[in-house]
Amino acid sequence: MSELIDHTLRGGWTASGAGAAPLSAHALRWLSTRLGLGGETTPAAPPSLLEVPASALPEPARAELGELLGEHQVRTDDTARLGRAGGLSYVDLVRRRDGADLAVPDAVLLPADPGQVQRVLEVCARHDVAVVPFGGGTSVVGGVAALRGDKPAVVALDLARLDRLVSVDPVSRLVVLQAGVRAPEAESELAAHGFTLGHFPQSFERATIGGFAATRSAGQASAGYGRFGDMVEGVRVATPAGEWRLGSGPASAAGPDLRQLAIGGEGALGVITEVALRVRPKPAELRCEALVLDGWQAAADAVRALAQHRVLADVTRLSDVDETTAQLELAGGVKSRALRTLLLGSRIDEPCLLVLGWEASSAAELKQRRAATLRALGGFRALRLGPRGGEAWQANRFAGPRQRDALLDLGVCVETLETATCWSRLSELRSAVRAALVRELERDGQPPIVMCHLAHAYETGASLHFTVLAARSAQDPVGQWERAKAAATEAITQRVPGHELGRGTLTHQHAVGTEHRPWLESEIGAIGTSVLAAVKGAVDPTGILNPGKLIG
Amino acid sequence: MSELIDHTLRGGWTASGAGAAPLSAHALRWLSTRLGLGGETTPAAPPSLLEVPASALPEPARAELGELLGEHQVRTDDTARLGRAGGLSYVDLVRRRDGADLAVPDAVLLPADPGQVQRVLEVCARHDVAVVPFGGGTSVVGGVAALRGDKPAVVALDLARLDRLVSVDPVSRLVVLQAGVRAPEAESELAAHGFTLGHFPQSFERATIGGFAATRSAGQASAGYGRFGDMVEGVRVATPAGEWRLGSGPASAAGPDLRQLAIGGEGALGVITEVALRVRPKPAELRCEALVLDGWQAAADAVRALAQHRVLADVTRLSDVDETTAQLELAGGVKSRALRTLLLGSRIDEPCLLVLGWEASSAAELKQRRAATLRALGGFRALRLGPRGGEAWQANRFAGPRQRDALLDLGVCVETLETATCWSRLSELRSAVRAALVRELERDGQPPIVMCHLAHAYETGASLHFTVLAARSAQDPVGQWERAKAAATEAITQRVPGHELGRGTLTHQHAVGTEHRPWLESEIGAIGTSVLAAVKGAVDPTGILNPGKLIG
Repeated sequence: MSELIDHTLRGGWTASGAGAAPLSAHALRWLSTRLGLGGETTPAAPPSLLEVPASALPEPARAELGELLGEHQVRTDDTARLGRAGGLSYVDLVRRRDGADLAVPDAVLLPADPGQVQRVLEVCARHDVAVVPFGGGTSVVGGVAALRGDKPAVVALDLARLDRLVSVDPVSRLVVLQAGVRAPEAESELAAHGFTLGHFPQSFERATIGGFAATRSAGQASAGYGRFGDMVEGVRVATPAGEWRLGSGPASAAGPDLRQLAIGGEGALGVITEVALRVRPKPAELRCEALVLDGWQAAADAVRALAQHRVLADVTRLSDVDETTAQLELAGGVKSRALRTLLLGSRIDEPCLLVLGWEASSAAELKQRRAATLRALGGFRALRLGPRGGEAWQANRFAGPRQRDALLDLGVCVETLETATCWSRLSELRSAVRAALVRELERDGQPPIVMCHLAHAYETGASLHFTVLAARSAQDPVGQWERAKAAATEAITQRVPGHELGRGTLTHQHAVGTEHRPWLESEIGAIGTSVLAAVKGAVDPTGILNPGKLIG
Repeated sequence: MSELIDHTLRGGWTASGAGAAPLSAHALRWLSTRLGLGGETTPAAPPSLLEVPASALPEPARAELGELLGEHQVRTDDTARLGRAGGLSYVDLVRRRDGADLAVPDAVLLPADPGQVQRVLEVCARHDVAVVPFGGGTSVVGGVAALRGDKPAVVALDLARLDRLVSVDPVSRLVVLQAGVRAPEAESELAAHGFTLGHFPQSFERATIGGFAATRSAGQASAGYGRFGDMVEGVRVATPAGEWRLGSGPASAAGPDLRQLAIGGEGALGVITEVALRVRPKPAELRCEALVLDGWQAAADAVRALAQHRVLADVTRLSDVDETTAQLELAGGVKSRALRTLLLGSRIDEPCLLVLGWEASSAAELKQRRAATLRALGGFRALRLGPRGGEAWQANRFAGPRQRDALLDLGVCVETLETATCWSRLSELRSAVRAALVRELERDGQPPIVMCHLAHAYETGASLHFTVLAARSAQDPVGQWERAKAAATEAITQRVPGHELGRGTLTHQHAVGTEHRPWLESEIGAIGTSVLAAVKGAVDPTGILNPGKLIG
């Protein structure tokens, strides 16, 4: 299907910084003043300076894997191994820039098909070698860190060659895709049949079908297309205990929905090799536009009205005042000034940008759906910016990771985190998380910029997505963020007296990985963790699968 | 909240036959001819003739439970025990009528709240007493059979006193209901707050919130409101390993969705004591109407168009020709003749009745939604019967179980079964199941009446619900049905070469229980059954919970 992605020398989303989105002079000035940056750039260390330990893969295992996959598909060279040394969290990137504390796999395996994946697991189980499944490598929670746990060696199981569209059932609108297919290729293959998945997370350009399933991803158009898990009709999973296939029909009451265990297993409960997915006709019409609402609470109430009237646009994204302001500043002064002028003429004091995007099979359907959305917003004070605001968002919908590369070079600590809670607790939780981040990060100097948006609305609640910018601590950049994240997570997971469902979830769309693992029990209880451990024991009795992720 | 339901002397849905829906003379004649019935009635044996073994509950366990719950809430009298001797499947009812092979619990426990349920499990685990959770007692798959497994005694844990609406969050549209609340009371309590669950399965009149969750129920308006599992936001579950609470926010990516294990656990993985549920405003407008389409395949294609255009009515129910005909005959000769007259004037050769029901918050919304549905049916040949046909269905939507009581008295073998599969396999599967049922049941005499309807449509597939009427075998009524059900289940679960997702699911809405257990592995694989066993081991290490159901 596609050339294998070059995972080499990953100091950022963009290999070696090429393609990093540059910041305008205005944005630079604004950021430097707001965060108190020193002005010097801090580029990544050249890969030649990174220390790569010798491969610890025992020779008998290497030989057997080479025989199974072909010698070229068992790579132990530094380039291949460095390319799979972790994901793309801020901490991952900082470590990769400095070369410190890098967890490098002892080999990279490139199986050709689900059968080879199954046999790789059997070989690795026999040789007690840890296996880290690797798709797009875009985890931001440590999900693909090459940890070996109590095993003598660890391999990255790169699914890039599982890149086939296996089958298309146009009548049932069901397709089967192999796990290593990247999202853009999936979309282009499906487009040839007139279909789309409609799954567009910010990681779209790199992420894979298997990764989406294993982490229960949610895309930017989730209000229209559902979360990725909602699209999964069946899965094929390789486990050390044998191959597991699930999926019979669109809905079932045959006991617990085990597909929900197989997906969200984060490679610790098996390696997803194929996914059967619901698809929809590729929309003929798209429209994206922006409005400015006044104040967070009113704006959140407006989105709640859309969700509860079930007239959400397919893309529905609401920025708080801080994000609205910061986005304008970072986009450049002209736009910012233009909007300020517009706002001066309005009665809006606390501008909150709402981006709405509809997709439809016909102009008439689009018109009808758009009218229904806007009708439900009728009672809320709003300034309509028209399609231009929406198009700006659309043009930059996948640019975040590239912009982050530029920010990293400037010495900025830049990271995101997200949660979700019920509507009645949403604003309180936003304030609590914000306060925790500010409190923790201003210890090191000037207050951080903390922005928040609501990107996934449901009838009963919504997600909150925070983006943090702060001056990076030169002494302890990793510790700086880890303390801030811990403070935010404590605020999210805190029990609310008399409000059993009012806590936030640990993560709305980014999985548990290593980063959320210490808090998982606070969300799923001691019984929940023992259930996960029991499931792990059944499918992976010797614990070779993705040690240290999800399960303690 | 409500008086406790009288589970005493259950020879049918209606206690002692009172309220059984009588059949018209026309219906009786038609049935007798079609099935070759003898003409004599076969009423249930009076309960005084049923043999109830002495309670085997060990005295130390009884005493401890009496101290915990109060002596009156530990009932060992025959009346209480007989009332919880199984559910309402055809086989259950035949056994209860004959008094043969009845599995009677050794005691009935009536805890007052979730805390008492938790302590009951601890006491029962200590004394090694099996526990069968009991809600509305409407299981049709043996889910509440009082099996003791390898335990010396078994108790029915009746949740009738857990009958509270615990909390209402109108902003988030979330409520918490205790597990023993029956559906009609849930609706009436919620109506006082302006809300509805929108969950209306045929068992509505008796079934409970906990039962809906434990069996992953689907109601008649599932196209509009979703399956019961879609409404569950959180659960509180008592297990021998401790209490388990799940639910943080409307959506999460914090590992596998363990709520999907807690629900669908059929009482074998814990006792659900409270459920947090999404509610919707009680609709202001309702409209139900009927159409007749021509031929099964065209009619199924029409429903598929509705599902794939996402303009399904909230209730969407399509009967095949056999069901359309049989329903008219059973409803009486006048209606049947009237429709025949109508059809004579149309070009419809193979009438398939389609019932559509919309619910909306305003007349305008109803009009718009109805128009969208009917527009999508534009290309299909249809005879509109108008609201009268819809109202007839609505008036009788919960009457099936009552009619069954009358049929049982007439010596009819009457049972239902259901499955779901993808659209491209739907008609083939309908034919295969139908053929298997006819083949098996005509061994005993005249061919059975096998009717089928599609009651739950999804973008990728739909459910098929079969109703079977046959002359009951006098010698071996249980074996007669068990053989027919086995033949149908083999047809459903058969692998289809080259079509991994084309098999039917064992059950779309009625759980596994004892009846589907032998086939569960064919659906979830050997890994699936070992995963379920591992989960069971974690929450119920000594196996006291609902032995013989779901898990082997």
